[in-house]
Amino acid sequence: MMMVKALFFDVFGTVVDWRNSIAAEIDFFSDEKGLGLDGQAFALSWRRRYVPAMARIRSGERGFIDLDTLHRENLIEVLDEFGVKGLNDSEVEHLNMAWHRLNPWADSVSGLTRLKSKFILATMSNGNVKLMVDMAKHGGLPWDMILGAEIAQSYKPDPETYLAGCRMLRLAPEECMMVAAHNGDLVAARALGLKTAFIARPTEYGPEQTVDFKAEHDFDVIAESMEGVADKLDC
Amino acid sequence: MMMVKALFFDVFGTVVDWRNSIAAEIDFFSDEKGLGLDGQAFALSWRRRYVPAMARIRSGERGFIDLDTLHRENLIEVLDEFGVKGLNDSEVEHLNMAWHRLNPWADSVSGLTRLKSKFILATMSNGNVKLMVDMAKHGGLPWDMILGAEIAQSYKPDPETYLAGCRMLRLAPEECMMVAAHNGDLVAARALGLKTAFIARPTEYGPEQTVDFKAEHDFDVIAESMEGVADKLDC
Repeated sequence: MMMVKALFFDVFGTVVDWRNSIAAEIDFFSDEKGLGLDGQAFALSWRRRYVPAMARIRSGERGFIDLDTLHRENLIEVLDEFGVKGLNDSEVEHLNMAWHRLNPWADSVSGLTRLKSKFILATMSNGNVKLMVDMAKHGGLPWDMILGAEIAQSYKPDPETYLAGCRMLRLAPEECMMVAAHNGDLVAARALGLKTAFIARPTEYGPEQTVDFKAEHDFDVIAESMEGVADKLDC
Repeated sequence: MMMVKALFFDVFGTVVDWRNSIAAEIDFFSDEKGLGLDGQAFALSWRRRYVPAMARIRSGERGFIDLDTLHRENLIEVLDEFGVKGLNDSEVEHLNMAWHRLNPWADSVSGLTRLKSKFILATMSNGNVKLMVDMAKHGGLPWDMILGAEIAQSYKPDPETYLAGCRMLRLAPEECMMVAAHNGDLVAARALGLKTAFIARPTEYGPEQTVDFKAEHDFDVIAESMEGVADKLDC
């Protein structure tokens, strides 16, 4: 642990509460337009399409396409599923940009600020750079660098996503620690030699959540919050 | 000016005082080892080799090589010029990393902090990502994103360097403003449609300085400091 120089962060679910943020945006928009949408159900349906959309890129079926574009394609499907018709382009774009305005969990900014005093903090998210930069401005997230899918031109958990980040910081995998609320993300990073930190986010998916209530492996750090990670890393 | 969303910063000379920072490191090292070096002369000789080294890459004579590597090749030449022999690898590496520890001008951090409240702040430097990240940690520079040569795989003033940064932030050139202490950098950016801000840094090269004492073109902002840029952009 003494040799860790950079922390890589999963963002959706680990740092920000995408479900309640998207649901609130959808509810607000729905009330304004009289659409009668259930924001929570809408958010979950939108997110459910995320892994399959990336899988087609990871398999090579499609070339690399950024997450804003995938989110927009998926949004069109969800609008159709919920029977919403006749939105214009700028309304669809406004809704799609809700992913740029996700709110941090209550412990994220304070925990990250403590961690920043000792480590390089980089995003290791599937979100594209612009999405991450806008979200950081919105929520006050103190990143030193935006790494991840767009920089690597590959989506987690492909090894190249993590390894491109290590290379860009001129660090060996064991000098980097992946921080995530998802066991699968950490297992993929650990297989490449990165250190790992798990944060439990048991409300990420709400009542629909079935996995990731706790660390299922012997990760280097296991905590209940970003502040807990800072505690365990002596920040 | 109302449509500007991101500011792109030249870093060496514009944000940090490379000459006095490098000179101080060389003087300290020289005193420790009894080498009798003139830090100022050493710093200027090292920097003088920067443009020709990049020119060989810009012309296509060499493939893209990061600035840390070019700095190290040039350092070997300067050590030879100054008759320094017998340094081991870790001493050479320590000196080369002096570029990661450059100190900001006195107005840089306060000015950037004001600008950050209103704009995305990104580096648009020929320095590689690790160099920029380390320097930001060292000097407290509040970047939102590191763009520039390594991200674009091309060196300024090649158009691709600026344009790759605009694309990554999903912004049109006219939504980005290049901030630099060098007329040539701004002329290159302006030719692509970026807005421009000049900061006078008349002591950058010390007594050797012959150019860039003032803005030689009608740039959008002309200021004497980073605080002056913040004033003119109403931050």
